[in-house]
Amino acid sequence: MRVNAYAAPAAGEPLARVTIDRREVGPNDVLIQIEYAGICHSDIHTVNGDWGPQPFPVVPGHEIVGLVTDVGSDVNRHHVGDRVGVGCMVNSCGECVNCRAGDEQYCVKGNIGTYAATDVDGTTTQGGYSTHVVVDADFVLRIPEGIDPVAAAPLLCAGITTYAPLRRWNAGPGRQVAVVGLGGLGHMAVKIAHALGAEVTVLSQSLKKQEDGLRLGADHYYATEDPATFEQLASRFDLILNTVSARIDLDAYLGLLGVDGTLVNVGAPPEPLSVNVFSLIGGRRSFAGSMIGGIALTQEMLDFCAEHGIAADVEVIAAEKVNEAYERVLASDVRYRFVIDTATLT
Amino acid sequence: MRVNAYAAPAAGEPLARVTIDRREVGPNDVLIQIEYAGICHSDIHTVNGDWGPQPFPVVPGHEIVGLVTDVGSDVNRHHVGDRVGVGCMVNSCGECVNCRAGDEQYCVKGNIGTYAATDVDGTTTQGGYSTHVVVDADFVLRIPEGIDPVAAAPLLCAGITTYAPLRRWNAGPGRQVAVVGLGGLGHMAVKIAHALGAEVTVLSQSLKKQEDGLRLGADHYYATEDPATFEQLASRFDLILNTVSARIDLDAYLGLLGVDGTLVNVGAPPEPLSVNVFSLIGGRRSFAGSMIGGIALTQEMLDFCAEHGIAADVEVIAAEKVNEAYERVLASDVRYRFVIDTATLT
Repeated sequence: MRVNAYAAPAAGEPLARVTIDRREVGPNDVLIQIEYAGICHSDIHTVNGDWGPQPFPVVPGHEIVGLVTDVGSDVNRHHVGDRVGVGCMVNSCGECVNCRAGDEQYCVKGNIGTYAATDVDGTTTQGGYSTHVVVDADFVLRIPEGIDPVAAAPLLCAGITTYAPLRRWNAGPGRQVAVVGLGGLGHMAVKIAHALGAEVTVLSQSLKKQEDGLRLGADHYYATEDPATFEQLASRFDLILNTVSARIDLDAYLGLLGVDGTLVNVGAPPEPLSVNVFSLIGGRRSFAGSMIGGIALTQEMLDFCAEHGIAADVEVIAAEKVNEAYERVLASDVRYRFVIDTATLT
Repeated sequence: MRVNAYAAPAAGEPLARVTIDRREVGPNDVLIQIEYAGICHSDIHTVNGDWGPQPFPVVPGHEIVGLVTDVGSDVNRHHVGDRVGVGCMVNSCGECVNCRAGDEQYCVKGNIGTYAATDVDGTTTQGGYSTHVVVDADFVLRIPEGIDPVAAAPLLCAGITTYAPLRRWNAGPGRQVAVVGLGGLGHMAVKIAHALGAEVTVLSQSLKKQEDGLRLGADHYYATEDPATFEQLASRFDLILNTVSARIDLDAYLGLLGVDGTLVNVGAPPEPLSVNVFSLIGGRRSFAGSMIGGIALTQEMLDFCAEHGIAADVEVIAAEKVNEAYERVLASDVRYRFVIDTATLT
C-alpha cells in the first residue's frame, strides 16, 4: 500500500512530501487511517542527526491518532471504526523479563521504535506524518471517547512520558511535586500531577508563562532565573520532574528535595551532568530517569486523562507547515504541542 | 570531669595523648565508661582537614561502646551497668519534620556530631578515643547481649550506614544486591545483606579478598579491574551499594542495574561525579545517597545483628597505635575495622 507522508531526506534537511509503502495487514496487524500526528522534540533530534545516523529518508511522528480501517484475522481487541493511538513503540520481543513486566520500552532485545527502527520483517519503520500506518495490534491503544482526538495525539508520547514517573514516584494527595520546564512535556506533567491530587509547582526559567501554568493546574510558579527561588524552596519537594533536556545545575535542584525526595529526568541532555554526591547523601535523595512507559500503563494514562478531562493544549497545522513548526519548537514558540492534521496529506 | 583521650592537635598532624573535660551529668545525660572505639575513615578525613576547617584539638571516634556508670535524674531507659553504644550523633532538635520522622541525622537545624561539632551548651563535642563520654540519653543505644562488645563498636557507624540503605531499598529474599568495595563499610554490607536474605555479589577492584568475601556471606565475587565483569553482569542488580568514596565510572555501574534498580552511594567523593542521563533513563534507574541512619533504626540494626549473630571483623589496638592504624586504613590494610581498646588510655 503506497501512502503519502512527510519525510526528512537526510540529516538536517527540510522535510518534504514523499510516498512510502506500508506493509500488507498481517494476522495480528491493524491498519490505521491517521487523523493526527503530534510533533515531538524527539522527531527533530532524530532528523537532525543529534542522536546518531538514521536510515533516511525518515518519516517522523510517534504521537498518532486515527481510525481503524482494517484488522488482521487474529485481532480481537480492535475493530474497524475504532479510534486508536500509537506511541513511541510498535513492537518488542514480548518474552523478556521487562516485556513480561509490562515495560516493553525496556525490552532486553530493544523495543522497535515507531520510526527509523528496524521492524520484525527487516524493513525500516516509518512514523505518523503520513496518512496510514500498519501496526501490531498489541501496540495499538484505545482512545477513549471524551478526549478530543487532536488533543489526544500528544498523550501518546508527552502524556505517558510524564504520567509514568508521576505514578512511579507517587505523585498524589499530600505530595509536593515540582515540574521543571513548561513545554510540551511540562504542560502535560502539570495537568496530570494536578489531576493525581499533588500540590504542583512549576519551576520555569522566567515568569513569562505563569498565567498559563496556573491555568493548567499549578498551585505555585517560580522563576529559576531568580536565585532566591532556590533558597525559598529548599527541601520543599517530594518529587521534581525535570522535562528540560539542557544541562541544569543538578546540585541546586537536588537541594529543593526533602529527605527521600527524587529528581527524575525525562529529558536527556547529550552531555553528561555533574553531581556532587553530598547533594544526594545529605537528604537520602535520588536522581532518576524515566523513558516513556509500557503499553498497559499507556492505556491506563489515556483512560485517566479521559476520566479527568485532560489532554494536550495543541496548535493544529497542515502538513506543509511542518518545517516552520520545527523552527518554532526549537524557539519554544508553541503552547504547547503542534499536531499535524494528516487530512492535509491526502 | 577530666579524662584521657587521643586528639589531633591540628589538621594533618599525628594524634597525641591529651586530657579533656567532660561535662557534668545533666538530668537527661548518661555517663559512659568507654570500652571500645572504632576507627572510621571519616575520622581520618576530619582530622586531615579534607572536610574543611575543624575546631582543633579534635578527639575523633563515633563508634563507641561502653558501660553506663552514671545517669541523670530524668533517665529511665538506661541504667548503671548497661552496655551501651554511641554513634555519629549526640543530639538534634527533636522537633523538626525529619527528627519527628526518626531521621535525626537529617535534622533541619543540623544534627550534633559526636565530635568536632558545637553542642547545645556551646562547647565542642569530643569523640570516643577517650575513657569516658557524657551523652544525651536519647542518643545512647542499647548493645544487646550476644554481640561481642569490641565487634559491636563499628556497627554504630559502619553498621547503620549500610543497614539503612539496604532496608530503605529493600534488600531481601529474591533481590540481587551488589556491594562495591570490601572495606569497613563493605564487609558489614555483605554480612547484613546476606542476613536480610538477598543474593549478594561483591564488586571489588581485584580478587584479592575473594575468599574473605565469600566467607562473610557473599554469593558471588567479581573484579572490577576486569572489563568483562561489566558485560557479564549487565542489568543484573536491583540494588548496588557503593561504599567507595573515590571517583568511579558511574555510567558503567549504572549499566549493572536492571529496570528500577538503584545505585546508592554511602561514600562521598570530594569531587563531583559525572553521569550520563541516558544511563538512568535507559532503565528507569536511580542514583541515590544515604547517610548513617536515625536512632530508632540504629537500635533496630543492633538488635538485628544480635539476632543474626553478626558484627564487625575487627583488629583491636592500643590507643598509642592510632597513628599507625590511620596509615594502614589509608593503605586498605585492615580486615576490616580497627577498634581502640580504650582501657589502654587509663
